Amino acid sequence: MISTNGEEQIRFGSVGLGRLGYKHAENLAFRIPNAHLVCVCDIDEAKLKEVQPLWNLESTYTDFKKMIDDAQIDAVLIASPSAFHCEQIEYALDHSLHVFCEKPLGTTLEECKVAEKAVEAHPELIFMLGFMRRYDPSYQYVKSAIKKGKIGRPILFRGYSVDPESAIEDAIQYAPHSAGQFMDMAIHDIDLARWYIGCEPKEVYAIGGCYAHHEFGEYGDGDNVGALMKFEDGTMAFLYAGRTAPHGYNVETEIVGTKATLRVGSVPQSNLVEIIDDSGVRKQCSQDFIERFNEAYINEIKKFFDCIKNNKQPGITVYDGTKATEIAYAATESFKKAKLIKLEKN
Amino acid sequence: MISTNGEEQIRFGSVGLGRLGYKHAENLAFRIPNAHLVCVCDIDEAKLKEVQPLWNLESTYTDFKKMIDDAQIDAVLIASPSAFHCEQIEYALDHSLHVFCEKPLGTTLEECKVAEKAVEAHPELIFMLGFMRRYDPSYQYVKSAIKKGKIGRPILFRGYSVDPESAIEDAIQYAPHSAGQFMDMAIHDIDLARWYIGCEPKEVYAIGGCYAHHEFGEYGDGDNVGALMKFEDGTMAFLYAGRTAPHGYNVETEIVGTKATLRVGSVPQSNLVEIIDDSGVRKQCSQDFIERFNEAYINEIKKFFDCIKNNKQPGITVYDGTKATEIAYAATESFKKAKLIKLEKN
Amino acid sequence: MISTNGEEQIRFGSVGLGRLGYKHAENLAFRIPNAHLVCVCDIDEAKLKEVQPLWNLESTYTDFKKMIDDAQIDAVLIASPSAFHCEQIEYALDHSLHVFCEKPLGTTLEECKVAEKAVEAHPELIFMLGFMRRYDPSYQYVKSAIKKGKIGRPILFRGYSVDPESAIEDAIQYAPHSAGQFMDMAIHDIDLARWYIGCEPKEVYAIGGCYAHHEFGEYGDGDNVGALMKFEDGTMAFLYAGRTAPHGYNVETEIVGTKATLRVGSVPQSNLVEIIDDSGVRKQCSQDFIERFNEAYINEIKKFFDCIKNNKQPGITVYDGTKATEIAYAATESFKKAKLIKLEKN
Amino acid sequence: MISTNGEEQIRFGSVGLGRLGYKHAENLAFRIPNAHLVCVCDIDEAKLKEVQPLWNLESTYTDFKKMIDDAQIDAVLIASPSAFHCEQIEYALDHSLHVFCEKPLGTTLEECKVAEKAVEAHPELIFMLGFMRRYDPSYQYVKSAIKKGKIGRPILFRGYSVDPESAIEDAIQYAPHSAGQFMDMAIHDIDLARWYIGCEPKEVYAIGGCYAHHEFGEYGDGDNVGALMKFEDGTMAFLYAGRTAPHGYNVETEIVGTKATLRVGSVPQSNLVEIIDDSGVRKQCSQDFIERFNEAYINEIKKFFDCIKNNKQPGITVYDGTKATEIAYAATESFKKAKLIKLEKN
Repeated sequence: MISTNGEEQIRFGSVGLGRLGYKHAENLAFRIPNAHLVCVCDIDEAKLKEVQPLWNLESTYTDFKKMIDDAQIDAVLIASPSAFHCEQIEYALDHSLHVFCEKPLGTTLEECKVAEKAVEAHPELIFMLGFMRRYDPSYQYVKSAIKKGKIGRPILFRGYSVDPESAIEDAIQYAPHSAGQFMDMAIHDIDLARWYIGCEPKEVYAIGGCYAHHEFGEYGDGDNVGALMKFEDGTMAFLYAGRTAPHGYNVETEIVGTKATLRVGSVPQSNLVEIIDDSGVRKQCSQDFIERFNEAYINEIKKFFDCIKNNKQPGITVYDGTKATEIAYAATESFKKAKLIKLEKN
Repeated sequence: MISTNGEEQIRFGSVGLGRLGYKHAENLAFRIPNAHLVCVCDIDEAKLKEVQPLWNLESTYTDFKKMIDDAQIDAVLIASPSAFHCEQIEYALDHSLHVFCEKPLGTTLEECKVAEKAVEAHPELIFMLGFMRRYDPSYQYVKSAIKKGKIGRPILFRGYSVDPESAIEDAIQYAPHSAGQFMDMAIHDIDLARWYIGCEPKEVYAIGGCYAHHEFGEYGDGDNVGALMKFEDGTMAFLYAGRTAPHGYNVETEIVGTKATLRVGSVPQSNLVEIIDDSGVRKQCSQDFIERFNEAYINEIKKFFDCIKNNKQPGITVYDGTKATEIAYAATESFKKAKLIKLEKN
Repeated sequence: MISTNGEEQIRFGSVGLGRLGYKHAENLAFRIPNAHLVCVCDIDEAKLKEVQPLWNLESTYTDFKKMIDDAQIDAVLIASPSAFHCEQIEYALDHSLHVFCEKPLGTTLEECKVAEKAVEAHPELIFMLGFMRRYDPSYQYVKSAIKKGKIGRPILFRGYSVDPESAIEDAIQYAPHSAGQFMDMAIHDIDLARWYIGCEPKEVYAIGGCYAHHEFGEYGDGDNVGALMKFEDGTMAFLYAGRTAPHGYNVETEIVGTKATLRVGSVPQSNLVEIIDDSGVRKQCSQDFIERFNEAYINEIKKFFDCIKNNKQPGITVYDGTKATEIAYAATESFKKAKLIKLEKN
Repeated sequence: MISTNGEEQIRFGSVGLGRLGYKHAENLAFRIPNAHLVCVCDIDEAKLKEVQPLWNLESTYTDFKKMIDDAQIDAVLIASPSAFHCEQIEYALDHSLHVFCEKPLGTTLEECKVAEKAVEAHPELIFMLGFMRRYDPSYQYVKSAIKKGKIGRPILFRGYSVDPESAIEDAIQYAPHSAGQFMDMAIHDIDLARWYIGCEPKEVYAIGGCYAHHEFGEYGDGDNVGALMKFEDGTMAFLYAGRTAPHGYNVETEIVGTKATLRVGSVPQSNLVEIIDDSGVRKQCSQDFIERFNEAYINEIKKFFDCIKNNKQPGITVYDGTKATEIAYAATESFKKAKLIKLEKN
């Protein structure tokens, strides 16, 4: 179909209508020129009924495979629970669809290997992983500065990813399926650290605990965790992930180099307003990932879209997904066993 | 025509392909769902040739009236030189088109009165003025806080609008047509002050000069100017506008109240990165209005779009345009004559 | 008398035990090496009794002239009510004492002329005026940067001096004697503007009012006032002074130049702590001038001390005091008469 | 001897005229009311000659024991090389002198035990250790906020202590005697972490390397190092210490709690000036510990002075010194052996 501005459209299906899945679908429906959201899949039928007229969908599904089999689409966006990612990737690729998949790639290395094989079997299709921070303008600025040698030799990467306490109930409910803070929260920092440092961690030591909400302990997890890693080239990385930020969604990143230090979001401000009143001089903070990464979520889909149009693979590969999962898994193991974990060289 | 998501489209024409006009047209072509940019008008034929395929335009024009007469459009966006605004508004309304017009409404009160009459003659059409700051999330936050009484009684409004020195050549070239710093730069602050304070200024004293570029003096203007105003309810307003900011596009606003002070953009940061190197700890700055108000420019057109859809007039009226022009004119007069100017009550 | 470190001591008397006078006396007693506070004068006998043993004073007085006549001192610090300053300066100089006097020099030009004559009659004695901001490290940094040409040509000076609402009761009580906001609060900004710009204002327009506390109106004053000034060389200056800051003691200064803008205290932070909690990311603010200018109050007395030791006059002269009073007076007149005031060239 | 303000003086001797030792001596000579610096000891005779008239010293020494034996003093300040601290503490206490000793207490646990015994043997004398951060107003604010429960349950302590690259030559020269980054730089953070968290670390993992200056490697040290620690109550602590900050002296501390996060010095600004120029909006940074902790160095000596006057021991005990040394030693061992170290419970 030809769009109003004369370009050919790409027809999309989307699976998963959780908070982020909903946002992605909405972006596809309204904010990506020439993308046409044709159908969505979710187990919640009420939600399907709600969104169909809103997004003018041709059809809705409660079964992923049925959507892939029946719908006339070019590409699928996967935002289902993490444990389904890899099999859905395989199924979609095998049905000749381009695939965009939310992080993490999978929750086990075995799953990741399934996805790797499927991607390798379909070099003619585009596969992209949703590490959206790589498409955030501030994070891109940092990458570009590192590349140009502006920070000199990297010494220390520090990544904080902390969800607001106000969202704790959802987090507790999701805890049994989250695969832990390192897999669910810190994985973005793991990806950033690899992207910025340019090699792999070889040793990790992780600690943490339940400082406010014992419930996470039932799943061998903490509500706040930290990890120190040594990369192959000697660069240090400290990660801190948690669920109890009183002030909002605190994603803060720092890379210390011999010539400069760069920080992203050291104040997670929600807008450009400074409030001066009887509590001092303050900025209000972003409340969630959708507010903070609004632009990045659109940019990454545009990138995916461009890759399809121009038939070239994006910079983020399926192997980035496997590697991040592997590292998150090692950190989780260190945390659980209270010991130093060496990562094997692949 | 029906859009991919099932909503009816609104067909747009646009006049003026200067920097902001180009941006507006591009937004209409790609970033406003269900808007369909059908044609543009400009005197630069080379530019018309360049954009026609880019935006898949049905037609292009070098004559505004011809575009209005011939093209099948529902609405027109006016981003031509300021002196043409009012007559184009009149012509378009008289041809049953909804009109979105860039600021200022006109450069003289007589022009403004022409526009007022045309708007009054067409209550069935939507007319909106491009004071985009009213659609910037940070400025909206401030308005909402004032309304809720969070700042108490307003005492002082301070508005800075300074273009970067790096753009000085364009500014000098434009100087003969700009109607001066108060009309061209400070007019946004004049609109904000009126919006926040909720009444009109009754006295203005303006000073300034050519501190770096004597060329502005040839047109009775300065490269940097300041004005102090007393509003009807006693609130003070200090405006500073200029062309020589070494660091970027400095739009900074403050409203001091008895209970709180709010500031917008006191550091005109371009992203969330903090750079720590041998020049200290710093943030880089936005370089122009398009970077700073990117979101607001889209939001205002969406608002215009919604008003058309739902047949309701926007909050910014044609009288806001006249009033801002009148105040900018009084400030300019004070600056030129070096005396205190009283504004008459309308 | 010889001090423990072998230097000769200077014996001081001090008049006025208001908040600042008390602080000065305490500094003389404990924080200025080789200064020896010998006696103090105040009308409050209870306070005299309280401080005598605390500071190990040789004597106390309720009458200034008696102190000057009787006490064995080398220098006197004057922190009495402003209206007494000039006659006390004259009396002390005529009795061969070095004099340090708090701002303002006097509340009328006639008083100032008396002080000028006395200073001129005693070139062998040191006279210094308490514009302590000139001895604050941040303000000195700015002066030095301007001198080195770092900001280019000055365009605009902006000075805010706002007392906290929490101190409003004292301010109201003091209102009948304060000579108004321009004389009492803005006079420091007037001095800074003259110091930084390096010439005199020639035109001033002032406005303001009682936004929260009508009491100031009874004395022809406002609780918040603003003034715009044109200096001889065309530099603009905007001053804002008030009494109702909700957050603390807000002294903030900016000088905009063609090459750089410098700001001092744009967040009036009280320490280096950043608090991140459910009200956002914030800094707490200084609560009064003594907290903010603690170091400057000591530095200025050390400077005075050095001048006495080395028999050289400080950079701040009696004429700076007269000029600042004259300008504050013109701003007050503009405010009261609602008209533009031209300052005469002396 | 009676001071000018009537209080009895305390007579001080001081050993070590390195940068900090010099500063301490100067403070004793001029900035501590009623302290009387009587003599100093250093091996550099030229320096002794230089300071004697400057500080009006009664005598100077090149031999510590001789100073203790001969001089008429009440107290001694020890700022000699770290390896001498403990024996000098013992000697001074055994000669009935109050002792103030710079950090670290000692470089080995054996040395520390010697000091502990000497202190235990002289309960009638005051002993204080120079962890000056405990006397910095910002750090005291944090301690007080933690005590009041403002941050809730502590989760993570983060401490950065990085010297400027501009001081690298001194650092390299000092490297053979420094006992490593953890003992020399991070020890302040170790003390702060213990003070804020209120218990001891039980596990530490440390990494790092020579990122810019291989010379540190010759002594088994790095130019930048990091450590992650688990405290007995589960609180996490991340320490980062280094020598290559391009921007200045970067001491930055954060404590994350369940209710609030507090940060000290996240921008190590040297004054209240904000510079806006073509490199953006920036603050200049403190260049060394003496600039940053100027006030704390005076406060701690005042505290020591008060303790002597009022015969009460300060909050920092000799055991705090031993414990910090023990922890720094464990971190150093982890760094050198590349393994996780468990700290034994005492």
